[in-house]
Order: sequence, then C-alpha cells, then structure tokens
Amino acid sequence: MLKTTGFVGRRDFLKAGATFLTASSAALPATLTAKGASAAPKIPDNMLYPGVEDEAYGSPSPHEAGNVRKIFPQNEKSTLTASFTPLHTQKGIITPSGLHFGAHHSGVPEIDPEMHELFIHGMTDRPLKFTASDLMRYPLSGGINFLECGGNSAPQGYYPEAQPMPLQYLHGLVSGSEWIGVPVKLLLQEAGLNPKAKWVIAEGADAGFLARSIPLQKLLDDAIIALYQNGERLRPAQGYPMRLFLPGWEGNTSIKWLRRLEVTDRPAYTREESRHYSETLADGSIEGFSMYMGVKSVITHPSAGQVLPDKGYYQVNGLAWSGFGKISRVEVSDDGGKNWVPAELEGPVLNKSLTRFTLPWRWDGSPVRLQSRAFDEWDNVQPTHEAWKSRYFEGSRNHYNAIQTWYIDAQGTVSNVF
Amino acid sequence: MLKTTGFVGRRDFLKAGATFLTASSAALPATLTAKGASAAPKIPDNMLYPGVEDEAYGSPSPHEAGNVRKIFPQNEKSTLTASFTPLHTQKGIITPSGLHFGAHHSGVPEIDPEMHELFIHGMTDRPLKFTASDLMRYPLSGGINFLECGGNSAPQGYYPEAQPMPLQYLHGLVSGSEWIGVPVKLLLQEAGLNPKAKWVIAEGADAGFLARSIPLQKLLDDAIIALYQNGERLRPAQGYPMRLFLPGWEGNTSIKWLRRLEVTDRPAYTREESRHYSETLADGSIEGFSMYMGVKSVITHPSAGQVLPDKGYYQVNGLAWSGFGKISRVEVSDDGGKNWVPAELEGPVLNKSLTRFTLPWRWDGSPVRLQSRAFDEWDNVQPTHEAWKSRYFEGSRNHYNAIQTWYIDAQGTVSNVF
Repeated sequence: MLKTTGFVGRRDFLKAGATFLTASSAALPATLTAKGASAAPKIPDNMLYPGVEDEAYGSPSPHEAGNVRKIFPQNEKSTLTASFTPLHTQKGIITPSGLHFGAHHSGVPEIDPEMHELFIHGMTDRPLKFTASDLMRYPLSGGINFLECGGNSAPQGYYPEAQPMPLQYLHGLVSGSEWIGVPVKLLLQEAGLNPKAKWVIAEGADAGFLARSIPLQKLLDDAIIALYQNGERLRPAQGYPMRLFLPGWEGNTSIKWLRRLEVTDRPAYTREESRHYSETLADGSIEGFSMYMGVKSVITHPSAGQVLPDKGYYQVNGLAWSGFGKISRVEVSDDGGKNWVPAELEGPVLNKSLTRFTLPWRWDGSPVRLQSRAFDEWDNVQPTHEAWKSRYFEGSRNHYNAIQTWYIDAQGTVSNVF
Repeated sequence: MLKTTGFVGRRDFLKAGATFLTASSAALPATLTAKGASAAPKIPDNMLYPGVEDEAYGSPSPHEAGNVRKIFPQNEKSTLTASFTPLHTQKGIITPSGLHFGAHHSGVPEIDPEMHELFIHGMTDRPLKFTASDLMRYPLSGGINFLECGGNSAPQGYYPEAQPMPLQYLHGLVSGSEWIGVPVKLLLQEAGLNPKAKWVIAEGADAGFLARSIPLQKLLDDAIIALYQNGERLRPAQGYPMRLFLPGWEGNTSIKWLRRLEVTDRPAYTREESRHYSETLADGSIEGFSMYMGVKSVITHPSAGQVLPDKGYYQVNGLAWSGFGKISRVEVSDDGGKNWVPAELEGPVLNKSLTRFTLPWRWDGSPVRLQSRAFDEWDNVQPTHEAWKSRYFEGSRNHYNAIQTWYIDAQGTVSNVF
C-alpha cells in the first residue's frame, strides 16, 4: 500500500481479502460492510406464485426507468439534438444500443429500408448502387469499438471556468458497441478506383445532407458500411438502415443513413468540416481534417453528480480509449497529479475500443483531487487541461481530451474542476 | 481455391477482389451484384424536412419488429417457458439483452430491488446478507461470455428423426453478453469459509425455489454475482436485481434472482439436478453435475428456415463456443464431412465466449450437406451426431453439442438433417 495516496494495489487487496473490507468496519459505510444475518431468510411474496411470461423483446426493469439518455432538444433556432449516454451507470465496455449517444444536426430521419440505396460514383470505373439487402450478401466484419463525437467534453474546452455539470453531460458523447458491416474496400474495388482518386465524399440521407470528406486510405483500411450494432440491425438514431463506421475517428465522419460515396481527388470542404469540425489553434491557424480522436480517459465512479456516503473503501473505475489503437495503461492520482498509481485494465483490451480500468481506493474523508490519465500503444498520453488550452484558440471546444479532475469535498460531493 | 468444395480461401477472395463478385455475374443473383447506377441519386422525401427527436431510451426500427424471441409459453401443465434467441439475424458475438434467451421454470418474478437480499450462510464463520446496492460497492469484474441452456438443441438429441425446425428453435438457447458483477470469492472470503466446505447450494427467488449445488472451487475461480449485462442493470428475465453467473457452465446453474448461497460439505441433489439436469448414459448409468458446456458450433447463415435465392456466392458464417476456454479453430464442410476447410475466426476470440467464424463459399446449385466443427484450446472437438447418440441413453436431450448438418436442396431450401 502506497503511503502517499489512498490507492491499494490489487495484490494487497486480494491478500488482505475480507479483512480489507471488514477489519476496520467502524470506518466503513454500512452499505459496504455486509450485514450480519441473524434470522433465516424470509420467503418474499414473489416466491409464492409463478412469475410472468417473458416478452418477445425484453425491456429493462421498471425500477431502472431513470437510466436514460439526457436529450439536448431541438428548438426554434436549431434542429441539432444531442443524446448523452449515462456513463455513470455503465459498467463494462458495451453501451446498450438504446443508450448509445447521438448527435443529430437535422433530427433522426425515418427511412424505409426497401427505399434506401447507397450510391458509389465519381472517379470509379462505373457507378454502383446497393440496398441494405444487397450489402448483407457481402462478407461482414467489424469489432467492438468506441464512437465519440468530436464535440464530446466541449464545455471543458469552451468555458473559462469548470462547469458544474454531471459526468453524463460533460463526457456522455462517447459509447461502445460491436459494429458489424461490409468492408468499404470491397465495394470500392467492385466499383473500380481511378488511380488519381484520393478522397471520398460521404453523404447522409438527413435533411441537412450531412457530408464529410474522407481520405480514401481510411476507407481502404478498416472502414465498414455498418449494418449491425450489438447483434441486431442499427437503431434509427444510429443510421438505420446503414451508416459509415470509421473506427477511432471523430463521430461525425461515421455518416449515418449513408446514401452516397463520391470518389474524388480532393476534399469537398463541406459545411460540416469548415463550419463545425475544424479547430482554430492558439496561433490562429486552422487545423482541418483532424480525424483521430485522441487518447482519453475519465473516472466514471466516483464522478461529478455523485456523493460518497462516507469515508472508507471505494472501487475507483472508469473508461479509457484512443483513436490510434489499444490502451496500454491508465494511471490514477488522488492528489491532483503529484503521484500516479497504475490502475488495472479490466476485461478485454481491444483496438480502438472502450477499455475499463479499476483500482481499490480508501478515502480518508479529506478533500481530494481525483484524476486518471491514459496512455495508448503509441505512447500518446492525455494532456493536462492547461496544456490542452494552450494548444487551441480561446473558446475551442472540439477534440477535448485533457485529464479530468474530480474534486471530492469533505462531505463527499464530487464536482468538476480544472 | 480447393477443388473438392465450394469454399474460397480468404486470400483467394481478396486477391480476386471485385472480380470474384462480378466476373461471373451472370451466375450471381441480382441481389448480390451491385446494380449499375445510371441516373443521379434522387432526393428521397426524408431529406426534405428535419427528422424526429431522439428517444430517451432507443428502440429498434419498426421495420425490424419481426426480429424477436420465439416464446414457448406457459400452459395448463407447466409454468416452464423458454425464449429462443433469433441467432439467424444476429451478427457478431453480442446478443442484444432484449433478445437474450431465457428458460424459466416458474416464470419471471417481479422483484423490488430494495426488498431483495442475498444471504450467505451455512458453513461460514458468520452469515451475511447483501442488497444489490451493497454489492455495487465491491470491486466489479467480468467479461464477454456465452450462456447456454443445458437443454439447448434438445430436439436433436431427443427425437430419432431430425425435426423440420428453423435455427432459432433448434439452437436458440445460447446467447452472448458482457456480464459484470462481484466475484463470489470476495463474498465467501468475507463470510469466512469452514475448511470442510466443498459445495454451495444456490437458490433463486422464483416460485420454484430453483436451486443447484455448485462445487465451491468454481465459485472461488471465475464466478460472479452479476449485476450488469451489456452495460446496464440485468433485465428482469435475466435475474434482476442479481444472478449467479458461472462462465462456461450450463445455464441453469447461473441461478437467476439469487437469494441464497448456503455453504455445505455435500451437494443437495435438488429437484433440478436429479429430475432435469443429469444425463443417463448409454449403459444406463447416471452422469450428474455435468456442468461444463461442451465445444460446439453452428452455421447461422445459411441455416434451416432460410432459402438461398440462387446459386453463386455466399458468405458462410456462424458461431462457435466452448465451456472450457477459447475456440482455437473452426472447420467447415460442404460435402457432409468428407473434406474440411478452415474458417476464419472473425472479431475478438475471447475465453468462454461466442466466437464468430466466416468463410466465402460458392454454391454450384447442387444439393449439399453443410457442416461446421469447432475445436477449443484444449483440443476438444465436436462429436458427430452418431457419436453423441452412442454416448447417451435413447431419448437424452441435454448437452447436445454434435456437428449440425444443414441440407441445401437444389431449390436452395435449407433444412435440418442428421
């Protein structure tokens, strides 16, 4: 056990076993220490008669009805909506499809899959078109990947002061799913590429004709036309009946309701990439086509919006991800970044995927600044908030991936600070 | 390309590229060959006005309303229900929680999580009890695992003739999820184990008091009290608010709505393990406590219930799993088992998890017998139907894991045969 922090190594934790949880039970909250059971278990009413039949398509328990996305709704000025994933209730690396984040610039179109076609045209030997049924005859592949909006964590970059928001609003525009579809490479090969082709303009079938310019190389690498998410067809808000999916790249480039791939020799500089998804650097120059989502992590428990009921033992855990590849390690600090302790990576560590980290921790009841910083296999590391701010022009908000600091006060209230 | 079969190696497939799909397009169904697009894409109605707002908890497209579990309902004689996963529509290794299989001997009880407690008692230093809230303070771990009913594929073992059933009814009592919870080991350590303890009786809070005897060693190995499935709390049909989860073991032992773990020095021989989940071998002896689910695979496309629209190219794909560990390889045959071709393992290959396999295949239009056989890292291999039958007493139905044969007739109709 390190002296400078409250973190407990996994070996120490397991060696101590039950004693760690109970030896100092006077200092532990009642909810952690298991209650001694003096009487035999009583038979509850639900064991006195048979239960109900299963549903054809199951739903969460009504007792979990509060576990939903927070929606930033359409209003008179804008059709933009955003749906924030409740990361504070998610465990593991899969986000339920019903809770996957969304950011829709023109709402969610209702599309009859039989009427929807994908066109591939431009600098090809011949134009082609495909329905979703056509695509399902092709080889399917994919994997478990994160998807993150380029504007996730925007309040952290945009405002000069840390906003008193909960985790869900601060960082809830990232989710994890198993995405399966047709490699774009196969379709481009079938269309026949002009040797001078370098870019592809991808356009969605929403009312905003949302379009992005994608370097051809990415489409030949690991891009898919996604048809399935978490074992079933895409949900409407995720692009039903088909979307582009670009592992590790900013979410906006994974065009939903994909209707058109136009092969070209230059980018289109669409509204989305000139107005929304290019960043102004500190010296006033513009960084365009900033596609990769940087290495990032956030502690989801404890996190802003939660209150620690008492001092004592907590299992710190959170999520880490990188658009460049696998997470190699995550470190955690409870003294604002002076000392760092390696966390354990829990569950599968997959390429361009959410990765769960966890570490036992004993809170002594005094105010602390809790942080995590992730490293990926290319030795990218999260910047500090100050380093991130110094790179971008004031008021920048996209691609914010700095270290998150949670401040826990003496009452156990967790809040967002810089 | 092998001469004896229609299977195409991945390298051959990629090398041939588009030509594989299109060169002999006269022989390919129109739905596979992409249609040439002569006119510019027309603007569909859904691009003329903004779409709808997102839902707080998303749902599948109404166009996918047919993708549901098939329910074997309660009736006057029995409260047993079974919900069969539509494996023929699943891609990847995650089953949506709403489509996860279920087998309920006394229906699905409705439980208020605040009223539900787990008791640990018997040969312990002290009895303990836990609510779900208590358990959430403990370290959580888990992973992506399959769960399979011991009675999955029962019609194959039970009936002397192959039944004309679709894939969903034949093999749909297996699913894959990310299961997260508290290691049972931690709780048993906290209770303090009597050195003579060897078994634990696990009991659920359903009207049948469903109970199984679990060897203590399994609970100290990789068992968890599962609280989360695919990123959210368990669904009611999966044991909300808590269930035992035993990776790789027959589903019935992963007791849902878990209310009691009684530590003992001997098994209880409960009704479930004497009446339902012990097998009679060919010589009349009884195999009890047959916990591990054997290595198994099934081709999900093409599969019984489907029709191949025409001869030509198909991507064969399916699922493999083993209760003993990882899948090491899967082989496929289209001549009834004379020649076997290695399939590609697609996506992550995880311990005690569904594993996706796939292989390009050209069907020449003549009747074929399509099969897959899986091997695990311990070199276990699926038996033939005949070998499986010869091991068990006539009419046995549990733990059926033999090679599945799909017969495809000249019209492309896929059916179940032995």
